[in-house]
This record gives sequence, structure tokens and C-alpha cells, in this order.
Amino acid sequence: MKYIDLNADIGESYGNFKIGEDEAILPLVSSINVALGFHAGDFMVMAECCKLAREYGVNLGAHPGYPDLWGFGRRSIPYTKEEITNMLLYQLGALSAFARAGGVKITHVKPHGALYNDAVVKLEVAEAVARAVKLFDPEVAIVTLPYGKLYEISGEMGLTVIREGFADRGYLPDGRLVPRSEARAKKSQEEAIAQALALAEGWVKAVDGSIIKAEVDTICIHGDNREAVKLAREIRQTLLKNDIYIQAWRKKRA
Amino acid sequence: MKYIDLNADIGESYGNFKIGEDEAILPLVSSINVALGFHAGDFMVMAECCKLAREYGVNLGAHPGYPDLWGFGRRSIPYTKEEITNMLLYQLGALSAFARAGGVKITHVKPHGALYNDAVVKLEVAEAVARAVKLFDPEVAIVTLPYGKLYEISGEMGLTVIREGFADRGYLPDGRLVPRSEARAKKSQEEAIAQALALAEGWVKAVDGSIIKAEVDTICIHGDNREAVKLAREIRQTLLKNDIYIQAWRKKRA
Amino acid sequence: MKYIDLNADIGESYGNFKIGEDEAILPLVSSINVALGFHAGDFMVMAECCKLAREYGVNLGAHPGYPDLWGFGRRSIPYTKEEITNMLLYQLGALSAFARAGGVKITHVKPHGALYNDAVVKLEVAEAVARAVKLFDPEVAIVTLPYGKLYEISGEMGLTVIREGFADRGYLPDGRLVPRSEARAKKSQEEAIAQALALAEGWVKAVDGSIIKAEVDTICIHGDNREAVKLAREIRQTLLKNDIYIQAWRKKRA
Amino acid sequence: MKYIDLNADIGESYGNFKIGEDEAILPLVSSINVALGFHAGDFMVMAECCKLAREYGVNLGAHPGYPDLWGFGRRSIPYTKEEITNMLLYQLGALSAFARAGGVKITHVKPHGALYNDAVVKLEVAEAVARAVKLFDPEVAIVTLPYGKLYEISGEMGLTVIREGFADRGYLPDGRLVPRSEARAKKSQEEAIAQALALAEGWVKAVDGSIIKAEVDTICIHGDNREAVKLAREIRQTLLKNDIYIQAWRKKRA
Repeated sequence: MKYIDLNADIGESYGNFKIGEDEAILPLVSSINVALGFHAGDFMVMAECCKLAREYGVNLGAHPGYPDLWGFGRRSIPYTKEEITNMLLYQLGALSAFARAGGVKITHVKPHGALYNDAVVKLEVAEAVARAVKLFDPEVAIVTLPYGKLYEISGEMGLTVIREGFADRGYLPDGRLVPRSEARAKKSQEEAIAQALALAEGWVKAVDGSIIKAEVDTICIHGDNREAVKLAREIRQTLLKNDIYIQAWRKKRA
Repeated sequence: MKYIDLNADIGESYGNFKIGEDEAILPLVSSINVALGFHAGDFMVMAECCKLAREYGVNLGAHPGYPDLWGFGRRSIPYTKEEITNMLLYQLGALSAFARAGGVKITHVKPHGALYNDAVVKLEVAEAVARAVKLFDPEVAIVTLPYGKLYEISGEMGLTVIREGFADRGYLPDGRLVPRSEARAKKSQEEAIAQALALAEGWVKAVDGSIIKAEVDTICIHGDNREAVKLAREIRQTLLKNDIYIQAWRKKRA
Repeated sequence: MKYIDLNADIGESYGNFKIGEDEAILPLVSSINVALGFHAGDFMVMAECCKLAREYGVNLGAHPGYPDLWGFGRRSIPYTKEEITNMLLYQLGALSAFARAGGVKITHVKPHGALYNDAVVKLEVAEAVARAVKLFDPEVAIVTLPYGKLYEISGEMGLTVIREGFADRGYLPDGRLVPRSEARAKKSQEEAIAQALALAEGWVKAVDGSIIKAEVDTICIHGDNREAVKLAREIRQTLLKNDIYIQAWRKKRA
Repeated sequence: MKYIDLNADIGESYGNFKIGEDEAILPLVSSINVALGFHAGDFMVMAECCKLAREYGVNLGAHPGYPDLWGFGRRSIPYTKEEITNMLLYQLGALSAFARAGGVKITHVKPHGALYNDAVVKLEVAEAVARAVKLFDPEVAIVTLPYGKLYEISGEMGLTVIREGFADRGYLPDGRLVPRSEARAKKSQEEAIAQALALAEGWVKAVDGSIIKAEVDTICIHGDNREAVKLAREIRQTLLKNDIYIQAWRKKRA
């Protein structure tokens, strides 16, 4: 019996500024990653997301980002290693209070945007992120690509890694994502549905047509708008039709 | 044997903007209240303050404020009850991550500035603050005046209250503080030293000359600048000379 | 020949956070009020709005608000008179640079949200706003209700007032708006169309059914979403069908 | 008869956060560069600075920076060319309203911190800055090093450049500043006084001991604290004793 985790970034609204179809995406996923007030989100949205996590029984993840509301956390802003560790502790701590109040636990941390990318390619950033998670709670897992600096360092530090795959991104023959700047980076909706199924089965068709192994624990789903939610729904249905169960990641215990 | 807690607001610097003589005030007090990044402070300063709390063995308090960096939390900004509860949960949670990483515990919550004042006179604000503390951790105490809405509601909700006195503020014959707008609100340095000693002994001389009972658990000390630190040092020495020990507040257990 | 000005608040997006159907509302109005980065908007949006003002030949208005991105400028935040004057000078100046670069002029200032309301009922706020406009450019007009403190003080200070009416708000028999808290405050879409036409003709049907005189120079139109734009289009068409021309307010010169 | 301009960055306080000895430095300089609310400063400080500029008869300069209050504008944050042009227009416009209200004119623009450095070495940033100044007011001069991208592009675009020298920074034999990362980058107070005099006379002693030509129009003076003000006073007195007049830069007219 096969199963896969579907995760979505939610809670990105800020005051009067509404982003994303949180209520629509929640029934479709098994894990959520909640924005923490630095690149998006606020203390009202975070409280609401923790309630939703409990209501829908999904895994609650922290989605920390650089402090950059205007840039939505998509810009690599220069911070020292210690600053990154501390900005993560701040954000993770903030979420933990809502989690406790809402009767749920933080299961994972998934860095957002530029922080996600920086943690894959820059050792200093990866170390800062992993250190923050370890200081915060070594039982909490880290969501990252199944390669790169954060993947490596998390392993070395004894942290659990949840390997993430993308339905709508092209893959290189070596298993890495095609850089966003390239034309082949983005998949069509139809391709995304097929790729989600492939990823759940442990493989993916690379941009050169070759079939490669791709072991991932979770697939990222978007809920930015109605179109995205529609695609998410189709991915979910395709998985279920193929006897792949949508199930939140669980720590394996010996 | 008599003892009293001395508390100071610290950690109010923000990035390049430095405020307060934190390193100088720490050896003089038994409790600190750390700004949490909303009205002052940031994630670097908070990390540092938790290290200092451990190093000096003082009680670590959270010092939440309205989100108002420009106004330094001194303005009453309209927020709903639920918004205040959530902004406090956010701030308390943020500090808790640094506390855990630094190996210390949050012992108390002292609202800052306008939030402190609003919680004394507005029932909605008092309820929002007490509810946040209860949701966060019912073992954590609330620092407030020995009268007013927050004092009352905390008692009703079963929360521990640390009653705060002020060395440099005038008292009315009914035990309340003279409003800041009045001429008699502020004490001279010499008067402040004498008043600190009186408060530690359980009484205070009101502005009409009458001697009134004043039971407080902690006295607020300022470390904003060198003059303030000098006064704090003299208050401490005067207390010690009079056989009053400076000791952090401890929860009485049956 | 009758004519009326239709104005809309635009430029309220902030970075990745998109608000309003600016491109759709612009062909329908004769004046725009541009958010200035304090309660909404940013330096990219402002630059774009000045280009749109030139392209569509509409009057360019400044739409200053309290510095409150999270609250979208809808909360009355305590500022001194001097602070309000200076926060307006800052915002008006900022827009003037984009106006100059885009080859257009600022014709009017319309305070936003809580600042709009405060300027109607609080003398201090009205004086602060009028003083800012006078210091900035006494040729610039002020958009406000045809009554209240800002209306009065602007007249006394020799500033031009553009009297604003609302298609979708109920009117009291004395010509004032029904407070938003009351049930009768909001008109249906159908009523709004009829009321826009009445206002353009100089009268309005009050909530008690009486017909009262209502002299306004401009009617506020919303472009928040597709529904609002649809209503705006119908209002415009109804006005045109009734031989009322949509024309930007122009200063009458002797 | 020789003369030189002395300039200082002022207006860097933010709300309750006070930075710099503005009142003490103003009588010593002939030009000021006012922070504009993005990396430091606020609308109250800017209004005050424009009054001081008028009172002391100094040149009023705009001191724009990246939007980075926490980092004090000292970090190079990725912005596109168009974003930089627009963030400068916003800031320059904001100051212009206070200048007009205060009866003074903006004579020059000096980028702050990381923006200053980026404009020297990155063509895109230099072009963005020069374009903003040209759009804002082509009569306004740009303060930059007497070499580098902004120096070059300003010349090409027909903008006036005010060449800046530093009393307290080491110079390389080719006339460039020693990078801050190097040990020889910083001069002692005594050396700074001698170097200010040399710069005013058109030369400087490079770090290898060689005497090189150094044509600058203005020398940067610091007023961050009492020590800095003391040094500024000594530099001023040394210049005056040597018959070099402190005089604000004036545009040469044919």
C-alpha cells in the first residue's frame, strides 16, 4: 500500500491583504506550512491556521522566511548565520504558542522562498536553519529537497528530513530541479498531474525524457488561487484513483 | 527577614538603534522584562537577554507591547480583545524559543506602556491579556498594579499576580498612582530612594502626607541611561543597608 | 448641461499583496485617489498610478492615511496635530515626485479611512490636514463631506473643497451620512445606481423617505473587486444615459 | 582663497530611538544630508532638519537609503533598477514637501550606506540613482566618490557631481579608498585632522606614504556621538586656522 504526503503553504494573508484559498486547500492536503509574520501572515492568521490544522487533522508546519513583507520573502537578504538562527527561533516560538493554545503540535519546519533556496545552496544558511530547529525542538522535522546543503547538514545533525518533490517543476536527469530561470522549469497542468503520480510512485521523467528514481516524502501543492486549487483537487483525485493514499508524514519509530 | 524583587525593562534596542544600559542594570535587579520585537527589541536582542538572564540568575519576564515601534508602545492603539490575546501569544511564544535555547524559563509577563495602562483600566484589554497568559502557560505570573482590571481578572482566572510598586511615582491616599499628567506624579531621586525602602517595608507616604499600607512584590527600576542606573544602584544599596534582600519573586507552593 | 466627477481610491496593492481592480476602474472614473505607502500602496504602485493618471487623463489625487499597513488605515491611531501635518507632508511630497516624473499634477487630497472620518469630527485632525495641504500647495483642493470640521476649516483657510457624496451610503434627513454601525447605512446595488443619479442632480432621498438637497462635486466609486467594478460601470452608464457628463473637477477661475 | 564644504549625515533618529548629535554638529558643517524614513529618520525628524537647515543656512541634502530600518541601510538588498529609481523618487519627494514648507531647497542627494557603495561599483544601481535625481530635479547635484559608476554616469547624464572625500579613511595610491575590511582603512583622530586639511588643499597621503592629488568638493564629518563631534570641531578649527573657509558647495554658473 502506497501513500504520500501533500503539503501546502498557507496563512499568507496580512491584515486586510488577503492571499490564497486557505479554506479550499485544507481539505485536499495532509500537511500545512504556516507563514509566521515575517514574509507574510500575522498573529490572527496564525491563530486561525492552528485551529484549521486541528479541525482537519493535518500536520502543522512552520514556514519561516526572511523578514521581508514587501518582497514576500522571495529575495535573498544578507543575514549572518546567528541572525538566521535567531530569526527562525523567533518565528518558530511564535507559532508554538498558537499551536499549544490550539491543542496541536508543530511537526515540521519548511523554510520559505529565498530562505528555502539559500538553505539548499549555502552551507552557512543551511547550518543556521538546522541549528535553529535543533535548538527549538530536535523532534521537529525539516522539509527540504532530497539533496543540497540543508539535506546534508540535517542528516549530520541527527534531524529528520522530509524530502519534498514538486508536481509542477521540471527535473534534471541528476534528480535536481530545473532552475526557474529556464524555459523547461515549469510543467503544464496536465504534466503536473502525471508528475505528482510518478513522484508518489518513486520516479519522475526528467526533462531529457529519461526516467529517474525520485524518492520523496511529500509533494508541494499550491492554493494561491482558484486555478491552483482546481489543479490540487485533480492531483489528489488522480492519486486516490491509483490507490495512493494521502497521508501526513509520520516519524518512523524503532 | 524581609526581601523584595527589583525588576527592570530591558532589551529595548532595535538593530542599530541602541536604548538602555542593559549590561549595567542587570547586576542590580532580580527580574528582567524583555521587549519582544513589537514596540522595541528584536530577535538578536531577545537571544542576548535570555543568555543574560541565565548568566545573572534573574527571573526572565516577557514584556509584550502593542505593535508600534515608532511610538515605542506608548500609544493606546485600538485592537479587539481577540487581537490582543493573539498578539500576546505571538510575542510570548517568540520569547519562549529563546528561553528554551538559553536554558531558562519565562516566569512572568509584564505588559508594556500603553498596554500596561489599558490593562489596568479597560476590562476588555485585561481579559485579553489574562487569557493570553493562561493559554500560554497558567504557571506564568502577571505583573501589574495591586489594583485595577488586570489585577482583578487575573485573580478570578486563577493566575498568580506579582504586585508592582514604583519608587519614582507619587501615590494617592487610596493607594493608587498619581496620574502622570499631574505635577505630583514624579518623585525626586532622593524621594525615590526613600520610597523604594518604604515600599519594601510595606508602606508608602501618599502625596497628602498620609502613611498608607502598600503591599507590593516587586519594585520597578529603570536602566534607560547612566543617571537611571546610578539611582538604581543607590536604591539597591539602601535596601541592602536596611537588611532588605533583593530576591526574585518565587511562586509560593502549598 | 450637467456634469459630475466620479472618484475612486486606487493603488492599494503592496508588494506581492494585490488589492483592487485598478486597470478596470480607471476607464470609468474622472479622478483617482492614490494610496501613498502608509496604509497601503508602495513606491512601485504609486509610479504606475501616476502613469495611469496621465494615460487616462484623470485628476490625480493624493490619498494619505495613518501609518497602519496591517489595519489598512481604518483605525484611529492617536497622533498629535503636528505629527498628522508632518505625516501628510511626507506622503504628499512622495507622490509629487512621481507626479512630476510622470508629467501630471496633484489636483486634490482625500484623506483615507480613519483619517477621513477623524478629519470630519475632530477639529485638531481637520486643522492638521488642512495645514498640511496649505503648506504643501494651497492650489490643491481637499475632498471631504459637505459638512464637518475639515469642510469648515478648509473654507476658513481659503482652501478649495471638493464636496463628496456616496452612492452606496444612506443619508439622514439633515444631509449627513447614516453611521456605518446602523442597519440603514448601506444601500443595495440598485439603490446605489439611483442614488448616484440623484446626487449628480443635486438631491438625495434620505432614509426617512424625504427628499433633501445634496450638493456634491464628486461621487465615490469602488473598484475593490469585480462586483464593485460592475456596479461602477452601471452607475456610469446610468449617468450618461441621463445626460450627465462624467468630468473631473476643475477649479473655477474668476 | 581656499574653501571646502563639510557635510554630515543627520536626522537618523526614529520615534523614541535617538541617534546622533544633530544639534551639536550643525554649527560645524556647511551641508547636511537628511535621512528619509527608509533606513532611518521619520517625518518628524525630517521636518525638524529642514528647519535647522534654514536656521543654520546650510545646504540641504537628501540622504536616501534602502528600506531597511533594522539593518540601518547598511546591507545590500536586491532591488531592480526600476525599484531603486522609484524608492529614491519617493524619498526625495517626501523631503521636498518639508523643504518647501520650511522655505529651503534641496541642493544635493547623497545615497546612504549600502546604496552609496552599490552606486559606486554596480552600473545598474548607479544608473537607477542618477535617473531618479534627473527625474526629480536635474538641478540637484549628486554626492559621490570622485570615481566609480555613479561618478561616471552622472557626468554622462549631465548631472552635477559633488566629489566627496573622507578625513578618517585611508587612501590607496590610485586615489581610491582602502576597503573597510583592511586594517589600514581607518585613520586615527590625529591623522583625520591632518587628512582633512590635506584634502581641502587638494592632496592626500596614501597608505604607502606617497603624496597623491585628491580633488574633492566636500569632506564627510560624523556626528554620531560626542567623540565624533569633538573631532569634527577640531577639523573645523584646523581648517580655519589654515585659512580654509568652510563653505557650502555652490553650483558654478557660466
